[in-house]
Amino acid sequence: MNVAVVNIGDELLSGKTLNTNSFWIKRKLSSHGFHIQTQITVKDEAGSIVSGLDFCIAKKPDYLFITGGMGPTDDDITRDVLFNYVNTKSQIDLEYFEILKRKYKYESIKNNEFIKKQALIPEIGEVIPNPNGSARGLKFEKNNAIIYALPGVPSEMRHMISKIILPEIVDSMQYPFLSRTLRTCGVSESKLHDLIATRDSIDENKIGYYPSVYGVDIKIINKKSKEIGYFVNWMYKIFGTYIYAEESDNMEDIIIKKCIKYNQTLAVAESCTGGLIGDRITNVSGSSDAFKGSLVAYSNESKVKILGVSKNILDKHGSVSKETALAMSKNVKNLFNSSIGLSVTGIAGPSGATKEKPVGLVYVGLATEDDTIAKKYNFGKNRKRNKIKTSQMALDFLRRGLFSE
Amino acid sequence: MNVAVVNIGDELLSGKTLNTNSFWIKRKLSSHGFHIQTQITVKDEAGSIVSGLDFCIAKKPDYLFITGGMGPTDDDITRDVLFNYVNTKSQIDLEYFEILKRKYKYESIKNNEFIKKQALIPEIGEVIPNPNGSARGLKFEKNNAIIYALPGVPSEMRHMISKIILPEIVDSMQYPFLSRTLRTCGVSESKLHDLIATRDSIDENKIGYYPSVYGVDIKIINKKSKEIGYFVNWMYKIFGTYIYAEESDNMEDIIIKKCIKYNQTLAVAESCTGGLIGDRITNVSGSSDAFKGSLVAYSNESKVKILGVSKNILDKHGSVSKETALAMSKNVKNLFNSSIGLSVTGIAGPSGATKEKPVGLVYVGLATEDDTIAKKYNFGKNRKRNKIKTSQMALDFLRRGLFSE
Repeated sequence: MNVAVVNIGDELLSGKTLNTNSFWIKRKLSSHGFHIQTQITVKDEAGSIVSGLDFCIAKKPDYLFITGGMGPTDDDITRDVLFNYVNTKSQIDLEYFEILKRKYKYESIKNNEFIKKQALIPEIGEVIPNPNGSARGLKFEKNNAIIYALPGVPSEMRHMISKIILPEIVDSMQYPFLSRTLRTCGVSESKLHDLIATRDSIDENKIGYYPSVYGVDIKIINKKSKEIGYFVNWMYKIFGTYIYAEESDNMEDIIIKKCIKYNQTLAVAESCTGGLIGDRITNVSGSSDAFKGSLVAYSNESKVKILGVSKNILDKHGSVSKETALAMSKNVKNLFNSSIGLSVTGIAGPSGATKEKPVGLVYVGLATEDDTIAKKYNFGKNRKRNKIKTSQMALDFLRRGLFSE
Repeated sequence: MNVAVVNIGDELLSGKTLNTNSFWIKRKLSSHGFHIQTQITVKDEAGSIVSGLDFCIAKKPDYLFITGGMGPTDDDITRDVLFNYVNTKSQIDLEYFEILKRKYKYESIKNNEFIKKQALIPEIGEVIPNPNGSARGLKFEKNNAIIYALPGVPSEMRHMISKIILPEIVDSMQYPFLSRTLRTCGVSESKLHDLIATRDSIDENKIGYYPSVYGVDIKIINKKSKEIGYFVNWMYKIFGTYIYAEESDNMEDIIIKKCIKYNQTLAVAESCTGGLIGDRITNVSGSSDAFKGSLVAYSNESKVKILGVSKNILDKHGSVSKETALAMSKNVKNLFNSSIGLSVTGIAGPSGATKEKPVGLVYVGLATEDDTIAKKYNFGKNRKRNKIKTSQMALDFLRRGLFSE
């Protein structure tokens, strides 16, 4: 199935808004086995929109997705341009017009013309409901391509594709593509690639690699769910502990889930991450059931005075050392009265490095009721990336240490 | 000056990689007064590339920027496609070939053909140096459009545009556009818009509004530096304390700069932000000169036990209250022995709300040697956005309280 994407909006071309819609649509549809032929961004102007549509239609896509310009204001012209493009008259959906009038009754949009525009429907074509907003979508056919026009508001557009359009398309396919995503941490793309290549010929799975600073995601696409299942089982055998989650779960989601499941509470002592670990954990709704808090001990003074790391350890081994990481994790566990203490100390850069302790050197400590362990890492030179990598590997260290089933 | 952008790469269309290059180029060139006509993403395939180039050239741009497909591997075909497209023969730059051979000597790329490809130069056209990588850029002219082809690696591409191409273009213009950006926090886009509209007719400044969760950035573009100057002076008179930075400085950059300038040290007590404030502050290189640390007191127990907030205050006013914010800021200042204590406590959502204390309710506290003050805010319902807004407004509260000159 071939797909083309047209994003409409001056704000996308001026660099005012990052085109996340385009990225989301391409990723979403790719993960269902669709092939994206091209993507184009055009101005809120009839000639530009038509030339963009013509360009895409010439590539004979099965589906053409359009976003933007479906709102009520003057520069929202997508609807009218499309009516002309597919050669259909339009009329007002009086029932929807009444709904909108009631909706906007207390808002500043006084002018009924604006509202009326959003109630326009084509004589030939369909309307796609928008449960999260006022601008409904449109569906047309032209030169064997099915055209979907959707509002540019990301949450509305995403909902309409995920919940209405994709199920409809998948339903219409005799053998739709299925997909599954495995998220790995601590193993390189090339290692994954080399091992996965050894069983490339066994089935018809299409494997996608999505590396990021958090690890490598593996997406498996196939029309046969059995073959996906075989592959996933094999992956768990080979890469078991490297796989931390499936689909869109993050490391912090997993940590909180596991802590709650096993009745554990967590406290963190952060140095080089500056608070990022606590920030990530508290992005999870309900994290307060397991997360007691974090101490960002950015100075040696605070490591001694608040966290109670002995001055001897700091003097003898330095603040970035295995011994300090061990003491930090043990002491933060006591300080917050939690069952788990996690600590990080490292050199985020660009300054603070010595010959023995380069930028990117990090120690992670983990204290439980039974044991206290630590591990050394070497990350790169980029300060922000170091912080993210440290946070991810520290949470992964905790996951492997306590929750690998 | 009209500009078109062509991004080449299968990974951009499959949603594997977010097209930040496109966004960066559009934003960068817009801020120099260029008008972006269209942007298109095409596959690593000759027919697709040529159709994309034709589409853009038909719009008669002054400049056409191409990114991607300039590397050494098989799917990097942009160079060859362009040689055909502008009808020029190519030859090997032997000197550069030797440089590359030396560079790759110890690397895995053994095949000289790969290296040779990157040393190809056109007979008609120019080469653009790439100080950060191996893939140099190309410059051609076709149908009065100047075509720049650049590598897809963001850092390389950005450097080449910022340091080589843009200065060259600006130099060639008799009256180039100049720009200045003012960053505001705590004032709405519509308020800015309404007040700025009152002096719209005075000069020829082109004003751009860039709202985000951090505030609204105002970009002023004009060919006359004097008129930009008049406007900026007027802006400082009208919106003085709302303007926290110019150009690309963040709130955390400003806070650390000011702390260091005024010999202040900072400690933070975080609740609903979970560590985000510390994380943002420690993104600034050199922040350790002013930032002592942060306590993420996510539970009431830690607010009492570690931070020493009296149980009376918590029982009487609740953890999300002005009184608790005041106590947290005062106590964290003492705990870390800093000159400034900043605190936040709020309901990030989605749970934890009551009728009197809805999701999004936040109190910020600020303690100095002289005084302790607090302020109440109401943010929205989205957990992550609430955290970001809280961190931004808390740092802004500190900036206004201590550093508004």
